[in-house]
Amino acid sequence: MPRYEDSQLYRIRHSAAHVMAQAVLEAFPTAQIAIGPPIEDGFYYDFDLPRPLEPEDLQAIEARMRAIIREGHPFNRKVVSAAEARQIFADQKYKIELIDGLEKGGRDEYGNPIDGPVTITTFQQDTFEDLCRGPHVANTREINPDAISITFREPAGAYWRGDENREMLTRIYGTAWETAEQLEEYLHLLEEAKRRDHRVLGQKLNLFVIDTLVGKGLPLWKPNGAILRETLTDFMREAQRNAGYLPVVTPHIGNLNLYRTSGHYPYYKDSQYNPIQVEDEEFLLKPMNCPHHCMIYKSEMRSYRDLPLRLAEFGTVYRYEKSGELSGLTRVRGFTQDDAHLYVTPEQLLSEFIGVADLIKYVFSTLGMSDFRARVGTRDPESDKYVGDPASWEKATAAIIEACEQMGLDYTVEAGEAAFYGPKLDFIVRDVLKREWQLGTVQVDYNLPERFELEYIGADGEAHRPIMIHRAPFGSLERFIGILIEHFAGAFPAWLSPVQVALIPIADRHLEYVRGIAARLKAKGFRVEVDDSNNRMGNKIRIAQEQKIPYMLIAGDRDIEAGQVSVRLRSGEDLGGIPVDEVIARLEQIVSSRSLELWSA
Amino acid sequence: MPRYEDSQLYRIRHSAAHVMAQAVLEAFPTAQIAIGPPIEDGFYYDFDLPRPLEPEDLQAIEARMRAIIREGHPFNRKVVSAAEARQIFADQKYKIELIDGLEKGGRDEYGNPIDGPVTITTFQQDTFEDLCRGPHVANTREINPDAISITFREPAGAYWRGDENREMLTRIYGTAWETAEQLEEYLHLLEEAKRRDHRVLGQKLNLFVIDTLVGKGLPLWKPNGAILRETLTDFMREAQRNAGYLPVVTPHIGNLNLYRTSGHYPYYKDSQYNPIQVEDEEFLLKPMNCPHHCMIYKSEMRSYRDLPLRLAEFGTVYRYEKSGELSGLTRVRGFTQDDAHLYVTPEQLLSEFIGVADLIKYVFSTLGMSDFRARVGTRDPESDKYVGDPASWEKATAAIIEACEQMGLDYTVEAGEAAFYGPKLDFIVRDVLKREWQLGTVQVDYNLPERFELEYIGADGEAHRPIMIHRAPFGSLERFIGILIEHFAGAFPAWLSPVQVALIPIADRHLEYVRGIAARLKAKGFRVEVDDSNNRMGNKIRIAQEQKIPYMLIAGDRDIEAGQVSVRLRSGEDLGGIPVDEVIARLEQIVSSRSLELWSA
Repeated sequence: MPRYEDSQLYRIRHSAAHVMAQAVLEAFPTAQIAIGPPIEDGFYYDFDLPRPLEPEDLQAIEARMRAIIREGHPFNRKVVSAAEARQIFADQKYKIELIDGLEKGGRDEYGNPIDGPVTITTFQQDTFEDLCRGPHVANTREINPDAISITFREPAGAYWRGDENREMLTRIYGTAWETAEQLEEYLHLLEEAKRRDHRVLGQKLNLFVIDTLVGKGLPLWKPNGAILRETLTDFMREAQRNAGYLPVVTPHIGNLNLYRTSGHYPYYKDSQYNPIQVEDEEFLLKPMNCPHHCMIYKSEMRSYRDLPLRLAEFGTVYRYEKSGELSGLTRVRGFTQDDAHLYVTPEQLLSEFIGVADLIKYVFSTLGMSDFRARVGTRDPESDKYVGDPASWEKATAAIIEACEQMGLDYTVEAGEAAFYGPKLDFIVRDVLKREWQLGTVQVDYNLPERFELEYIGADGEAHRPIMIHRAPFGSLERFIGILIEHFAGAFPAWLSPVQVALIPIADRHLEYVRGIAARLKAKGFRVEVDDSNNRMGNKIRIAQEQKIPYMLIAGDRDIEAGQVSVRLRSGEDLGGIPVDEVIARLEQIVSSRSLELWSA
Repeated sequence: MPRYEDSQLYRIRHSAAHVMAQAVLEAFPTAQIAIGPPIEDGFYYDFDLPRPLEPEDLQAIEARMRAIIREGHPFNRKVVSAAEARQIFADQKYKIELIDGLEKGGRDEYGNPIDGPVTITTFQQDTFEDLCRGPHVANTREINPDAISITFREPAGAYWRGDENREMLTRIYGTAWETAEQLEEYLHLLEEAKRRDHRVLGQKLNLFVIDTLVGKGLPLWKPNGAILRETLTDFMREAQRNAGYLPVVTPHIGNLNLYRTSGHYPYYKDSQYNPIQVEDEEFLLKPMNCPHHCMIYKSEMRSYRDLPLRLAEFGTVYRYEKSGELSGLTRVRGFTQDDAHLYVTPEQLLSEFIGVADLIKYVFSTLGMSDFRARVGTRDPESDKYVGDPASWEKATAAIIEACEQMGLDYTVEAGEAAFYGPKLDFIVRDVLKREWQLGTVQVDYNLPERFELEYIGADGEAHRPIMIHRAPFGSLERFIGILIEHFAGAFPAWLSPVQVALIPIADRHLEYVRGIAARLKAKGFRVEVDDSNNRMGNKIRIAQEQKIPYMLIAGDRDIEAGQVSVRLRSGEDLGGIPVDEVIARLEQIVSSRSLELWSA
């Protein structure tokens, strides 16, 4: 598969961005143009416009783009001197700034740092000329006018060069495909993603709320969300207990010296909060759990008989993110990792790696995310930035690949993608919208055991250094739940649903009967709600469906007579009257097996 | 019952402190004497001594105290002017400082602030005269020389006036009782308390570790301790779920404005850490969970039909304690509250209060702490420091007392002991050493609903303000576990034990058999350990007993033949061979019923 950057689609999108800029300049001759790169699934262009855009503006721009494309203009590349470039873009202040950068060798036109002065090129089609490295299509005709679209995406604004101290620009997103069918499918997925937006569903389903009085990027988990969290962590705790993990609990702050020892401070200072001075100590809001776990390892003499030691914690960590980059649950300032650190002997590395990968596979499959691939990040043989001796690295890398092989994982090996302290394995999960999410990172670490001087006494009576494995299947519980919400569009499998059963009496006289059933279900651990409101039945059903409650058990005179309930699924499917005992037994089986189906045989 | 301060025992102890100071001055004529008050269970005196004390010094001092007592010296009270006092204590710099204070009306001789100059008195017996308000016994003969003892307690040092910038003094603790039997019982309890010290057991049983590299007062919970925590919180979660509580999860930091709104900042500033500046926001390490929970209440429109709303969180909070006051798990800088806030209508207050008190009673009884009393803290009718209208207060106070009555609680009412925002109920638990611990505080709060402007729509369609109940049965999970460790001397009931069953093969050939039993137990959720070490059986049993593992299941040839195991309890009791199925069934019953007995019928 060629790289995206080398593909025709990339050139089409890059060219469509230029066409869009031409259309915008025609509509707003005083507009200042910034930059317009292709991105995954499309392109954008940033403009400094004389006024905010209305929907009609975007329609007109899109229409004009189609016309320009149909006119069949060639894209002409031209090499220019800095002086010539300054003349061409004399009215365009952002371009002038870019030219300064190109001349000095500071940054390219997309803001990426470069070394030394570079050749300056422009691309021109029709009346529009842009400072650009290319590549582009040869002629606008290569763009399918029926396969382009201006799309709306948050945020509509963007700072010039991403710098919040610079101008706020208007970013227009567009997309371009080879066929109209592809565009349609993409727009459908986009629409679907919007419908599934976890920020919207999070509010509708009462899962969480973010309030600036508490703090940006600091979600408050409301009861429904907290139940979801608890159910997920209980599931993970059980899986970990079965896999021989031991729980630990550590504080959310740590002495700065702990992070000096681990090397996280000052190296990762930018993503950390300012230390808190307490008497003669300085504390950091915990940015990661590993140093704490290393101190627990170190608190006892360890023998090879104690290894592997697998310490697990749902540890909440705090990292600085710019407020402009915060978003729902996916970009937050505090998040809980389903973290664990395994301390192993070199001989145990392979089997422990298989154990970890097995656990991750089991967890994702149970959650209905069986579509994943693995990526092995190995050492760059040319670089000397790595710690640990090459022989250990080779052994660890071989162990990771062997683990992938033994498990029959679909995996790729990417040289140079290892961390400086060891090779790693990433699990990349595809959700129902075919979006890929990097989850479940597993990292081998030679560095922290060294820095903390961790040891175990081997069978030979000598002190040895253990190898450490970091792993977190969900990664961040917050981000993972954000992904889950969108994956399921809020309609979680029954075992995960905050409310599992809504009990709906047809009239008030049926209330006692459904309360009896509710009590039986509660005693068995089900999360149930009796709708004793004054709403009509149809309304009650609608509310339960909107809340994505998997089961509605409805009872009227006939049901009571027959000792049954009428079962309705949130999908709208009506299963008719079923004996109460049978319903309870069926639900028990579905929930205890963590079934993904609501009414599996 | 007279106040302790008015009792003969108080005068005896106060006088014994003076006798001790006389004995010390005789042994160290250059010693500087500081202060020596009676305390609960005894007294102390602080000295500035020319050298550290040896055990023999203390023995000699104790012997000399008995001699002085037997000599029968009267205690003579004398009123003196400040000038006279300065002459009497010319060599005693701490006394001179105290006299300055008494003259200026700054502080009394125990460092408590007082208004205006006070009458200066001294008490003199034999060769010793002390600056003192009294009261004392009339003659040393009232002190029973066979009922006094010098005791050792941490810390052996104390700062002058508790100020860490002042001189470090030597504190000698003593105790005095009316009879030798009382002394003996007390010393026995002291010895027992030492044996049960949670800091010592915490290390021996691998429950937790405190390391200054992580931070003073910040325990790291090792696997055994984390299992104990998890088991306790799971128990509480279950009890709360059954009582209709809903879980929430909130971050460990909050915007300073949140605490300004709640009024916790700046009023409780001294127990909080410095704010962390992030962009244009300031964050505080969360000192309490209530403001966060109020924001969750406020995130939705509430109707009277939604109340009572009971929001529960195991919320970890951070509060500043001076490093000199930190101690094990009982005084820490970060702790987890089993916190909940109930938002109720005035009509619901009584039934919700009964519900809360019921839950607390259930929790303590299950944990084998059935010896408790309740204390109702009410409004001081003379004061106007309270928020909320008097009628509401009366109603709430009546509800609390009515709840105590209905539950048949042993309770006292203490006027003026309410918080400024509402009346409260404290549960005071007595442990096996008859020590009293204040646990399980329940507070009614009219203040926060007001400050956060919380509302619900009543049946009348109008907006009303809910009443808030704060409650935390354990209080701090850390402190509570510290108390539990000492209460059980580390020998937890089976359901709480980090390891429940040790499986011990008599020889290697029995290993497979015990592993089979271990697998069966694990599958049923038991926490088991197979001792496959090279130790001899006797040694294995000793280790399991030291680790306070409730059950040892031992297997040899005869056991395998008979399909049984030999059951031993950690108490040393040998129950002989019992069929495996019977053992498993019995253990299941004991653990699932949370029995306090190890082998109940």
